[in-house]
Order: sequence, then C-alpha cells, then structure tokens
Amino acid sequence: MYRPQITVLDCTIRDGGLMNKSQFSLDCVRAVYKAVCESGVQIIELGYRNSKKLFDPAQYGPWRFCDDEMIKKVVGDHKYPDTKIAIMMDAHKSSSDDLLPKEKSVVDIVRCATYVKDVDKAIKIVNDANAKGYDTTINIMSISTAPERELNEALQQIKEETKIKACYIVDSYGNLYSEDVDYFVSKFQKFLPGIEIGVHMHNNQQLAFANTIEGIIRGANYLDGTLYGLGRGAGNCCLELLLGFLKNPKFNIRPLLDVIATHILPLQKELKWGYSIPYMITGILNRHPEEAIKLMNLPDEDPSKLNFRAFYERMAEPET
Amino acid sequence: MYRPQITVLDCTIRDGGLMNKSQFSLDCVRAVYKAVCESGVQIIELGYRNSKKLFDPAQYGPWRFCDDEMIKKVVGDHKYPDTKIAIMMDAHKSSSDDLLPKEKSVVDIVRCATYVKDVDKAIKIVNDANAKGYDTTINIMSISTAPERELNEALQQIKEETKIKACYIVDSYGNLYSEDVDYFVSKFQKFLPGIEIGVHMHNNQQLAFANTIEGIIRGANYLDGTLYGLGRGAGNCCLELLLGFLKNPKFNIRPLLDVIATHILPLQKELKWGYSIPYMITGILNRHPEEAIKLMNLPDEDPSKLNFRAFYERMAEPET
Repeated sequence: MYRPQITVLDCTIRDGGLMNKSQFSLDCVRAVYKAVCESGVQIIELGYRNSKKLFDPAQYGPWRFCDDEMIKKVVGDHKYPDTKIAIMMDAHKSSSDDLLPKEKSVVDIVRCATYVKDVDKAIKIVNDANAKGYDTTINIMSISTAPERELNEALQQIKEETKIKACYIVDSYGNLYSEDVDYFVSKFQKFLPGIEIGVHMHNNQQLAFANTIEGIIRGANYLDGTLYGLGRGAGNCCLELLLGFLKNPKFNIRPLLDVIATHILPLQKELKWGYSIPYMITGILNRHPEEAIKLMNLPDEDPSKLNFRAFYERMAEPET
Repeated sequence: MYRPQITVLDCTIRDGGLMNKSQFSLDCVRAVYKAVCESGVQIIELGYRNSKKLFDPAQYGPWRFCDDEMIKKVVGDHKYPDTKIAIMMDAHKSSSDDLLPKEKSVVDIVRCATYVKDVDKAIKIVNDANAKGYDTTINIMSISTAPERELNEALQQIKEETKIKACYIVDSYGNLYSEDVDYFVSKFQKFLPGIEIGVHMHNNQQLAFANTIEGIIRGANYLDGTLYGLGRGAGNCCLELLLGFLKNPKFNIRPLLDVIATHILPLQKELKWGYSIPYMITGILNRHPEEAIKLMNLPDEDPSKLNFRAFYERMAEPET
C-alpha cells in the first residue's frame, strides 16, 4: 500500500546546474520537463532564481535566474496540470524583488535554500513569496555541520514565523548515515508539527537513495531526486531509483529511461558527477565538496589528482 | 563503540574476476593483497577455485583456479599474519579433489557459493574442506529469487549437517531493499543459531553499502566489500566506504586509497562496472544481470544499447 502524501520533486536542472553554471540548452530543459511530467512526478524545479547582481548572466546560464519568460519557453502552451513548477532561491543570494505576483508567473512553488545562520533571510523570502501567492518550502543546507542549538532555534523560528508547506533536510556534504537521517527526521517532526518533512540527499557515500528511503520510513513525504543522479559532485538520489521503489501506480519510470538516454548520458562526458574517491573523502570527513570538485577538475597529467592519500590527510585537518 | 566480532572480507579479485575472466596481472593481485592486509581487513579472497574441467585455463586467468602455487606467488615469503586467505568454490562448478590438505596450502578459508537447489553439493564441499583443515562458509546466491520453503529447508540442512563459520546472504541481483535485508537476516538468525551471518551485496540500485550497514545493524558480522566496488555488473559494496563507516581503530583506509589510484582505476577504462541503467533495470525487476551485461557490451553504435525502454519491457516479461 503506498502513501498518497508522498511528493516527489525532480531537481535535475537546478542541482545539475551547479556542475555547468546552469548552462543547459533549452532543448534539454524541455525534454527533461516533458519526461518528468509524463512520469507522474509532482514537482519539477527548473533552476535557481538567484540575483543578477551576484551572478553575472554573461557567465551563468538562464537556469541560474529562471526568468518567467524563460520558463514559459520551456512550458510552451502545454503546462502539465499534475506537475507543479518550482524555483529555488538561495537565502543569501536572492532578492524578493525578482519575484512577480504568482498570477503573472508559471511558477507554483518557491523553495528557499538556507544555511542555519541565514534563517532570518530565508523566512523573509518565503513570507514574501507566500504573500505573492506561491507555495513555499525551506531547505536547510549543510545539515551535517549545523550547530545543534542554532538548528533548534531556526526550526522553532520557522514554525512560529512562516507558513511553509515543507522543510527539507539537505545533506549537502553527503555525510549522513541512516541513523543520522532518523535523528534529523525525528527532530524536524518534533519542532515542526503540521509541516511536511523533506529529504535532499547527496551521494558521496553512495547513500543518497538509501537515505531517501530511510527518510520515507521515518515519515518524510517530500523527496528530491535527479535524473541519473545529476547534481553537484557525487550527485543526488537517482529519480529513476526512487520511482522504482515507490508503489504509487501513477508513477511511470519509462519516460525517465528515455530522457536519460537522449539528454542526460550525453552530458556525462563533460560533467563528471557521480561517486568518486575525492567526493567520498569529503563525505566521510564531513567537508564541503568544493575541494573535491577542484581536485576532480585538475588536468589528468597532474599527479596530485590521483594522490588520494594526500587529499585525505588535507581534508582530515581541522578547517581553517 | 565498535563490535569486535565484525569481520570484513575483500573479494575484489574474486568478484571482479567475473568482469575479466579472472585475468588480473600478478602485479595487480600482489598490490591488492598488500593494501588490503595493511588496511586491517581480516580476510582476502583471491579468486575462485573452479574446476579446470569446466573452465578452460586457456580462456580464464589464474584467479579462476587459484592454484596454491599461484597464491604463494602473491604472498611471497610474507604472509600477513592478521589477514586470512580465502578462495571461493562454486558448489556446481568445483571439485573437492582440487583441495590440498590445509597444511600444504596457504589458504585458510573455503567459501562455497551455492544456489539453494545445489545445497547438497555445497554441504559436501564444505564438509570435505573442514575435514582437510579449512574454515568454511556457505554463500547463498540469488537470495531474492530463492523459493521460501526450499530456502528454509536448505538453512535447516546447513545447521544440521555442517560446521561452517558463517552463512552469507548474497544479493546477486542487487534487488534487495533494507526491509528485505532485515527479513533475511532474521530468518538466518532463526535457522542458524551459533553460525555467523554474512552479507554480500550488489549495487544495481546503489544500495550495496546501505544494505551492508543494514545487515550490521541487524546483527550480521561477516561483511564483503571490494575496492571501488569492482565486481560483476553494477559491482559490490565499496570496501573504502565500509572502512570509513566502521569504528574499529585497527582499520586504515589509506592503503586502499593508494591501490585504488594505482591499480583499480586504470582497470575502469576496460571493465565497465558500476551503476548504470541496464543494471538498475535488472535489479528492480529481480533479474540476473547477464542480459544487462550483454547490453552494456554492445558496440556504442548499436542503437539498442541506449534503448533502455525496450530493455525494460523485455526484462519485465516473465522469465522463459
């Protein structure tokens, strides 16, 4: 028996955009949109709505800004009625000024990603978005390094000061084991009665899918996945695995298989997401993946690229 | 606090040998042996001891047969005292005649891999091996398709008729979810009091490591892993991830990082193990990976190679 509250969100273009400065072709985004909608997934996130004052549009692709005009080009005159469109606003890199009233937009949901320390900014963004008519979520990034007391206070504030639909546990570092997922889901449930819990997992330790299942078992109903795991560094929970697991008959894996073959696998030659030793090392040592990404991007002839032991020792040092 | 009973086994050369007909160079096997021993892993399995009547030594490399002379070339005059050497005998492809008395061999442990239907052959092999002085295990393959009643009878027989140290749950198809691991571990515990439970997981659904952790949580103490997951099809639980998780201070991940860089990653250009859509499909549909391996081995220009939907439909048909 499946749980009808379970809501799957595809964030291929959004999280994958961290690997290519959001430079996906319109054709690719259209194909992903079509496939995800036809698979029965309830929400698709088409990118960031970050501030053009902080990101140079000459360097970053359109999915870093997700102008309504651009999203309309994806949707065309056929917005699938059963799949909502989301955008992500970083609490510290976005401005509510960039948000039209909902009736002038094809966007349905604003997800605000935040570090614990920026929760006041996040609350402002989601409250502005709610006032403009959007549904909202708050996604708490880097949960594995959040100081306990500050996290508790942030959750308390979110409960008291917002009307979000869901609050996500975001394992940005790919550091969590199943017992940690249990711990955070229980905590969120305790602090946020009446608000759905979401999980967004990274694959540094090949646990993104398993931790998503663990979240489901513990009661999380909002689940993020991406096609073939495309996402920053080691990538995300694979959407195709998630649909293979979920029992709701409305889900259909076949359109995902098609678009992975036609549009996602061809990206793999350039964008090297997925499990690899540098990402594994930052994951187990609870470090941001940025140093691993730098190592992965070294030219093949650089001997330090394969000196995993030296990288391990460096990452094992306390952060400076 | 760690659990001192936990016994890790590396089967890189054995399971990886299914991807290259066991054609590893002696240099590679020596490097793996050294690294695994120096990492504190308690057992290393260096290959199959299969019958030369069933496998042609002109086609298969030495690690399909693991002659004692060959293993001695790996060990040299320095057998690491804290790491035992295992070989695997398939119940239906091996002969006890190929087993010397233990005092004439550097092998310590004989693991017998069997389908439920061949359990009588497996029992004969482990009893012969015990009589010759070896420790033994039985590894029950393709557990996800084993008929319930036959599996129960096989476990009953193993308990009554053998003196094995451990009995392994082998998820050959990469089909199990955590709840299935719980189910099988409980069953094995019920039927096999006094015998350790082992887990050998495949990564078709990116759950090999997670399912190994689930096994640990439920009480399994014998754990299989391979370097960088090298193994048939989607591969195995990554040994480096397992050592990153386990708390026993005797384990050291660093030698594994070195040998992955020097000897395992270079194999990846030819042997394409690891997560991919065809293996995912056979995993979720509970089918043997052989059809997926065939698909993966098609030339790139063959259009059916990327027709995942057609492959999915074919695998979803009942087996003939």
